[in-house]
Amino acid sequence: MLVVMNAHAEQDQIDAVVERIRELGLVPHPIPGSTRTAIGITGNRGPENRDTLVMLPGVEDVIVVTAPYKLVSREVHPESTIIPVADTEIGGGFTIIGGPCSVENEEMIIGTARFLIERGVKLLRGGAYKPRTSPYSFQGLGEEGLKYLAKAREETGIGIVTEVMDVESAARIEDVADVLQVGTRNMQNYPLLRRLSKANKPILLKRGMAATVDEWLMAAEYILSGGNYQVILCERGVRTFADHTRNTLDLSIIPVVKHLSHLPVIVDPSHGTGKAEYVPAMSMAALAAGAHGLLVEVHPEPERAMSDGMQSLDFDTFTKMQQSLKPVAAALGVEIR
Amino acid sequence: MLVVMNAHAEQDQIDAVVERIRELGLVPHPIPGSTRTAIGITGNRGPENRDTLVMLPGVEDVIVVTAPYKLVSREVHPESTIIPVADTEIGGGFTIIGGPCSVENEEMIIGTARFLIERGVKLLRGGAYKPRTSPYSFQGLGEEGLKYLAKAREETGIGIVTEVMDVESAARIEDVADVLQVGTRNMQNYPLLRRLSKANKPILLKRGMAATVDEWLMAAEYILSGGNYQVILCERGVRTFADHTRNTLDLSIIPVVKHLSHLPVIVDPSHGTGKAEYVPAMSMAALAAGAHGLLVEVHPEPERAMSDGMQSLDFDTFTKMQQSLKPVAAALGVEIR
Amino acid sequence: MLVVMNAHAEQDQIDAVVERIRELGLVPHPIPGSTRTAIGITGNRGPENRDTLVMLPGVEDVIVVTAPYKLVSREVHPESTIIPVADTEIGGGFTIIGGPCSVENEEMIIGTARFLIERGVKLLRGGAYKPRTSPYSFQGLGEEGLKYLAKAREETGIGIVTEVMDVESAARIEDVADVLQVGTRNMQNYPLLRRLSKANKPILLKRGMAATVDEWLMAAEYILSGGNYQVILCERGVRTFADHTRNTLDLSIIPVVKHLSHLPVIVDPSHGTGKAEYVPAMSMAALAAGAHGLLVEVHPEPERAMSDGMQSLDFDTFTKMQQSLKPVAAALGVEIR
Amino acid sequence: MLVVMNAHAEQDQIDAVVERIRELGLVPHPIPGSTRTAIGITGNRGPENRDTLVMLPGVEDVIVVTAPYKLVSREVHPESTIIPVADTEIGGGFTIIGGPCSVENEEMIIGTARFLIERGVKLLRGGAYKPRTSPYSFQGLGEEGLKYLAKAREETGIGIVTEVMDVESAARIEDVADVLQVGTRNMQNYPLLRRLSKANKPILLKRGMAATVDEWLMAAEYILSGGNYQVILCERGVRTFADHTRNTLDLSIIPVVKHLSHLPVIVDPSHGTGKAEYVPAMSMAALAAGAHGLLVEVHPEPERAMSDGMQSLDFDTFTKMQQSLKPVAAALGVEIR
Repeated sequence: MLVVMNAHAEQDQIDAVVERIRELGLVPHPIPGSTRTAIGITGNRGPENRDTLVMLPGVEDVIVVTAPYKLVSREVHPESTIIPVADTEIGGGFTIIGGPCSVENEEMIIGTARFLIERGVKLLRGGAYKPRTSPYSFQGLGEEGLKYLAKAREETGIGIVTEVMDVESAARIEDVADVLQVGTRNMQNYPLLRRLSKANKPILLKRGMAATVDEWLMAAEYILSGGNYQVILCERGVRTFADHTRNTLDLSIIPVVKHLSHLPVIVDPSHGTGKAEYVPAMSMAALAAGAHGLLVEVHPEPERAMSDGMQSLDFDTFTKMQQSLKPVAAALGVEIR
Repeated sequence: MLVVMNAHAEQDQIDAVVERIRELGLVPHPIPGSTRTAIGITGNRGPENRDTLVMLPGVEDVIVVTAPYKLVSREVHPESTIIPVADTEIGGGFTIIGGPCSVENEEMIIGTARFLIERGVKLLRGGAYKPRTSPYSFQGLGEEGLKYLAKAREETGIGIVTEVMDVESAARIEDVADVLQVGTRNMQNYPLLRRLSKANKPILLKRGMAATVDEWLMAAEYILSGGNYQVILCERGVRTFADHTRNTLDLSIIPVVKHLSHLPVIVDPSHGTGKAEYVPAMSMAALAAGAHGLLVEVHPEPERAMSDGMQSLDFDTFTKMQQSLKPVAAALGVEIR
Repeated sequence: MLVVMNAHAEQDQIDAVVERIRELGLVPHPIPGSTRTAIGITGNRGPENRDTLVMLPGVEDVIVVTAPYKLVSREVHPESTIIPVADTEIGGGFTIIGGPCSVENEEMIIGTARFLIERGVKLLRGGAYKPRTSPYSFQGLGEEGLKYLAKAREETGIGIVTEVMDVESAARIEDVADVLQVGTRNMQNYPLLRRLSKANKPILLKRGMAATVDEWLMAAEYILSGGNYQVILCERGVRTFADHTRNTLDLSIIPVVKHLSHLPVIVDPSHGTGKAEYVPAMSMAALAAGAHGLLVEVHPEPERAMSDGMQSLDFDTFTKMQQSLKPVAAALGVEIR
Repeated sequence: MLVVMNAHAEQDQIDAVVERIRELGLVPHPIPGSTRTAIGITGNRGPENRDTLVMLPGVEDVIVVTAPYKLVSREVHPESTIIPVADTEIGGGFTIIGGPCSVENEEMIIGTARFLIERGVKLLRGGAYKPRTSPYSFQGLGEEGLKYLAKAREETGIGIVTEVMDVESAARIEDVADVLQVGTRNMQNYPLLRRLSKANKPILLKRGMAATVDEWLMAAEYILSGGNYQVILCERGVRTFADHTRNTLDLSIIPVVKHLSHLPVIVDPSHGTGKAEYVPAMSMAALAAGAHGLLVEVHPEPERAMSDGMQSLDFDTFTKMQQSLKPVAAALGVEIR
């Protein structure tokens, strides 16, 4: 940390700050300047003491220098993490996870699983429990949905990615799913993150709608710090003033996350754009930006979907998109899984 | 809803849309224009069918006209709601809720309660369970904290406002608290909202960091639709590019919420600004904007606080602020409680 | 500035940074920590050297400590600036500037001036040159509009506030106006700011739609640094995801600007909300937040206005609002002008 | 447009709205619904009348259906525009424009031009007039800079892209430049746009920091409506809460612009990220997203640059990036120019 004194701070104010830093068990390093004094601090282990110092008389600001996360950090763990899931892995290559927003019935989820596995896609997404903005909207099939997902895996061998919304249903979902998904609205649901830190399945952690990279990595840190090192990050667009897409897909976070952390990071172009028409371009861009995969909505009949139809690809469009990703991946030297 | 066809849409595309609207059990009203056709729709009860229609060939956009909330709406329930709590009420006047971010120990919470009740403040805030960005930060005293809150009420008669973070601890908190607070990170934690819709205590629902007014009111609708009509809304600042405050306090939502809904709405100037220095000005502004009260952080020794010290008022500053609110409230014809 | 080395930086990288700092004529102060080294820098006069240093091997980040503005800073100039204009002044009290978005014809602008001056309002706003999003919208009356403004002053003695959009028309507007207004879209139009730094009239500088407080104060610095010390800042709402108002009025910037700068700061609740219905609440809040005045749209017949009618107050509503501001101002000990 | 009446609107309010619509010369189409009435309107040519209607008693909202731009619209002009510049063209393929932020001296600009032309890059960017946040920062060499740019073209045959900041210097810059660049801060500088609508050179129009797609296209409409049909759009990142990059590069606007407009759209990954390290990934993503080119900062010695060094590529990095773009472009069937 660095304490910046204001220009008119008096010597005894500076001395009091130095004293307080020592009281906190830290080491002060005063740096007198021509217009103001700054005081470097070493020995601290987090941003906890910032508030205390910033309130002292004569202090203009206290700047936190060190990133707050540890276990997720590439500084601490330089090698990239690769997470084996079902018949494939996430990290390293480019792994596609496809499927509908919600599990709507047995037939459609098994049909989608079959379609995907034939196309070489090893992971099926599909929500049994759905967070919906309106209490009057379809909320998912719940346990029945989980059964259909289990059946889809049984019949096709596809791996299952599905959302967990609360501690209560976590065990049931853990039994069925290969990857537990945490939605954007739950990125900072800490009781849920703590529970998942004890899960023995990988966690797909979506970025919060308005989360900074530090907050996102700190949410992952909750999971790692409890003992579950298998976290897959997923960018899905953030809230901005821009109104031409449902969310603003922030692809620039891909190289930043890869710089800061060893965890794999994938992209959800369906929520990122909100419109099927723009999904292929953004999927291609995600691949080119260095993402480790896609979480993409695919539905046998988007115009009949019970949720998110507008942003779901039909089978034909998915097939075409997958075809067009291949030569680009080859050019990039990346394997599509 | 209104379907807007694109300029080059052909007649058979228009016919197909009209047909589909009828299939959905709704009534189409085509409006042919000079550059394009629009089709008004009546009979719909929510935005559910939008996705289906927007994907039909020739459709440029589908515009949802009707607000998605019902029970919270002032159109449905014109009289303003006033919620009795402990020895006071929220709605109508200007009710101050004060106290520390976290319950840190018995002495400080009882001391704060005594101070507040002497100053005429009837409601004490204080977190026993704390959502913290870092897993390594102080997470609250948990059940022990609840005990201290109960004791503070017992000894002073003050009402208790405290945060509930999950379904699991809801019953325990319900036993102790007079108002259950839902934090900004949980505004769209639907399992939690559903649980609280069955609580017999009022819910203080903070606006999500990036929530639109519709999303906020829909979160309240979850609670009302389950049978709990006692919801207090709380603006606490939103995420924007602006970096001069911790969040951007959006006071303009106060008159908007009062126009759209019958529920009371208060303001948290502490999280809204993140700096004690700016809290009095924003508290004054909240009162003048028509808010029904304040949720404000007050701590006996902010510079020793275990969380949020930087934005907490000490007793002296709180007293001065309360004093300066009084004549303004009188000028506005509003009673401070 | 403070250079933060990354955790794995080697000693020779640290040495190279220290060396480069010296080359730049600055003084390095290395602060070795347990996980990483930081290097304080003194002697610098701006953020210019940041880029150079941040690119050196082993550097994680370079943090700029000192605010980039000087002349506008309260540290440099502790007394608050009060700017005399026409028959009144801005700064200190609470000065209302009222009038239509655009000058539409002689009759309406003189009628509005008469109404305002009778109500004790000493400054009339009204655009002769209008920045409009569409090239097909009414663009203002131009020179003819200026004539009507001049006539309004002649006949009523009211002071004139009007927008200047380019260097070309600046002299003509300077002849007529008492205050030259720079719109939100031109906050960083530097050739215009430089021209206005040579004007002998006060400048009303609106905050850019997405300007941070530093950028806003730096725009003012352009004007002061050229010799014109009469700058009035005006908050008018910023761009955020929120869709319940035209812009998000950021009242929390009022106490922040008053802390950082000696310049007066007023509020435009008309653009801030975009809806006349919400203007009185936000005007009241602006007063309570400590603003030095209002720039508010008033129109004899808002529903016939050629621009911004929706956010303009009619005479009755303005009168009522002004009446309701008075007791609040009195309670705050502030004089309304 | 569509007028939405509120649920309690009375019949005579509905009648009055219908009457007013007729007065405006438009055709009303009432659509009575179960909870409220809506009134479709045909015959309107822009959003002008919205304000008038929204203020009538009983009106809840007025929704504008038709996009406000015409000449830039793909509905009006279905074929994609390709703009010939110097020895190349923009639109269709993927055109790289490279060069330093500022022209710093003759040697560096000619050296950069030589380097680029050898690498097959046909367009050189470089600012002679620089908009800088601080009045104390380097503001560009002005006319001297223009001379060096002219010389660079003379000696190498490279085309020149340089920024125009005001009407005053437009003619001088028009003489030298092959493309006139309008910076993000001037996207809504309408006097400048009007002037450029009369220029006989293509205009590169950067998206404003907080501009919606409609506002951006309307700014282009200003230029087209004055007679200059050669506009190149350039996405350069927008202002959001995200702090991991200098701006948030909004690549999803690429397919949206291509859907809405016939104009070519390129990407500036240098300002978009603010860090050279992330430029190659975002350049690749821009190509994959379907952009028509790049505007990228290249400097012989970034660490000695007078501005924007931190986000400039050195020659080696640029060469590597260009090499890696080639196979991806080939895979996409796009020609790199």
